[in-house]
Amino acid sequence: MLGVYLDNVRKVSPLIHNITNYVTVNDVANVLLACGASPIMADDPDDAEEITAICSGLNINIGTLNTRTIASMFRAGAKAQELGHALLLDPVGAGASTLRTKTALDLVKSLKFDVIRGNASEIKTLALGTGTTHGVDADKADAVSDDNLAFMADFVRDFARSTGSIIALTGAIDLVADASRCFVIRNGRPEMGRITGTGCQLSGIMTAFTAANPEHKLEAAASAVAVMGLAGELAFNAHNGNATYRNKIIDAIYFFTGDVIDGGARYEILQ
Amino acid sequence: MLGVYLDNVRKVSPLIHNITNYVTVNDVANVLLACGASPIMADDPDDAEEITAICSGLNINIGTLNTRTIASMFRAGAKAQELGHALLLDPVGAGASTLRTKTALDLVKSLKFDVIRGNASEIKTLALGTGTTHGVDADKADAVSDDNLAFMADFVRDFARSTGSIIALTGAIDLVADASRCFVIRNGRPEMGRITGTGCQLSGIMTAFTAANPEHKLEAAASAVAVMGLAGELAFNAHNGNATYRNKIIDAIYFFTGDVIDGGARYEILQ
Amino acid sequence: MLGVYLDNVRKVSPLIHNITNYVTVNDVANVLLACGASPIMADDPDDAEEITAICSGLNINIGTLNTRTIASMFRAGAKAQELGHALLLDPVGAGASTLRTKTALDLVKSLKFDVIRGNASEIKTLALGTGTTHGVDADKADAVSDDNLAFMADFVRDFARSTGSIIALTGAIDLVADASRCFVIRNGRPEMGRITGTGCQLSGIMTAFTAANPEHKLEAAASAVAVMGLAGELAFNAHNGNATYRNKIIDAIYFFTGDVIDGGARYEILQ
Repeated sequence: MLGVYLDNVRKVSPLIHNITNYVTVNDVANVLLACGASPIMADDPDDAEEITAICSGLNINIGTLNTRTIASMFRAGAKAQELGHALLLDPVGAGASTLRTKTALDLVKSLKFDVIRGNASEIKTLALGTGTTHGVDADKADAVSDDNLAFMADFVRDFARSTGSIIALTGAIDLVADASRCFVIRNGRPEMGRITGTGCQLSGIMTAFTAANPEHKLEAAASAVAVMGLAGELAFNAHNGNATYRNKIIDAIYFFTGDVIDGGARYEILQ
Repeated sequence: MLGVYLDNVRKVSPLIHNITNYVTVNDVANVLLACGASPIMADDPDDAEEITAICSGLNINIGTLNTRTIASMFRAGAKAQELGHALLLDPVGAGASTLRTKTALDLVKSLKFDVIRGNASEIKTLALGTGTTHGVDADKADAVSDDNLAFMADFVRDFARSTGSIIALTGAIDLVADASRCFVIRNGRPEMGRITGTGCQLSGIMTAFTAANPEHKLEAAASAVAVMGLAGELAFNAHNGNATYRNKIIDAIYFFTGDVIDGGARYEILQ
Repeated sequence: MLGVYLDNVRKVSPLIHNITNYVTVNDVANVLLACGASPIMADDPDDAEEITAICSGLNINIGTLNTRTIASMFRAGAKAQELGHALLLDPVGAGASTLRTKTALDLVKSLKFDVIRGNASEIKTLALGTGTTHGVDADKADAVSDDNLAFMADFVRDFARSTGSIIALTGAIDLVADASRCFVIRNGRPEMGRITGTGCQLSGIMTAFTAANPEHKLEAAASAVAVMGLAGELAFNAHNGNATYRNKIIDAIYFFTGDVIDGGARYEILQ
């Protein structure tokens, strides 16, 4: 049922503006192209606002934020919101430093994001106003497991309710929720954590999926999670190291159709 | 006949300074190494001017321009021109925002570029002072086709005449022209458009080709176009997605000799 | 004997902060993950200091330095030193421009680096206060060979003595020395010079190796050199171009164990 949202990305081919970190930006661009969207990057404040205006989605990722790009995030974010574009926040490293935590909290306060996507520690930091993050990786104590699933699903729904945003808390088990429904998605492989930027890539395509499916943003965000996870499964080969695995994941998405997603996505919906 | 210009790059191994976007910069560096040149990147204004001085070519790409790097473009550009180095402009996204359009127009006004390389929309924007660009991709209405070939060839020759630069308008059909001659090159594959940065890579190696062939800059620029397009053809495998295809194109160039180019380049010259 | 230092990286999984250039940063992140470490990048002055505090090593690479990132290098460097973290300098292009030379010299004057890793021209520039660099590549006249080996080993030991840092001068023959001992390592292949960023990658993992082996920093730095060189040997395939070779080197490190290093490292120790 989630495959149609990928098919719509390929049909609409949304132009997605990414204000994102320079570590994984090339992979974000290529995975957007792989799923049928078009990427553009601009991070000077003047330029960012105008580039956002010609796009249909804005992906804000604070991975290597600085004073100049933070200004761009607020200006482009306000423009995207004004124009009704898909608007996503990836609060990379929120909880790991004052600047990251404050910037992410201020962005959430100033803007109404369609989706906030992060790992468990980042989302907790935003929801609770403080948190601990092991660098850009989640603290193990924060992980979603079958033992705390009901509790965590309530937690993300509550945060979705208070922000008005879809919350995508991703890890071994992925939760994608609005105030009432929570998708629990079990695709993916642990080896994806040994590649830099699979989270950033997911945020990129999730922006494209919500831009191309404005009437079904929750399902579209869940579909993006399933696409990334399923690509990680199908691209996996125990003989490949992490550099090749990275390429094979993007390659896999390049060939995905809605049918592949419908056949491979493993999820349930908690109401 | 175009192969010798690649052979000369391998002989001379020019050091090429790139003030370029952070999205595709790694691929630009690797493709320069693949064709026998050496890359260096510096974008602080003080540093950029001095680094340009030790190089033999400067590739200015405005893909993720900002206030600081724009200053570097002007200062390094003036130094490159003063020293008689190969000087190329890639006006990424000109027409898509005021800052991009204005910066590209100001650069063309201030500096005499050996080559200006862009897609049809970017070149039109520079030639006409205004334009529409679908982000960093060309507007379909601007594409060169067999129907408008004579008109477009005249257009690029006219713009070459008025700027004194070689104009490389690249797309499905590539045009590389000075005021009198226009190379029409038909290498490449449409799937190259699903990889981020093939245009940026082309600008990088085109700078190296013109630096290594100062007496034959037009032919050298045309040769770079043929090299990139032919690599796209020979590296193509329908089983590979866009991430692997990207690597295979650079790999192909790594092994190219002048003979391969002479055997595979498909072009005509309109006088 | 050098394999245990890799095993320790995998055991400890150190978090390494990299203030590094945007050209090769993605490869640095993936190679750190490949060897069992975790990368994080932050280059805004406020953020950089705090991110350093949660890490156990700091890798400062001046490859695309600018005013803002230089300030971050000094502040984060001082914090890393205060906290006793592993601290490495990669003086990319020192000798090629005033800003690079001055920044590298000032950093060496202000901070006590555990390791300074560069090519022969960069290290000479730092040791002698002036130098010539062919862009980011070493001048051929500076290369270490069997003819000048004793002289160069003395040179790096002297510079190690005067700075109190381990000096890693890498090239066809690699020297890694403190004031008394000099590892001479003969792994690697010349084709690695046709890939952008193998030096940057080495600096990244060397920071992780010294962070994970605080009691044996010299051996750990030498081990990192052997790991990178051996990966270059085992990943080499004459049919692959430089883009694929780049990926295969990172892939090789992903599967390395201490035993592989013990079996393949080729080195002697000059006392």
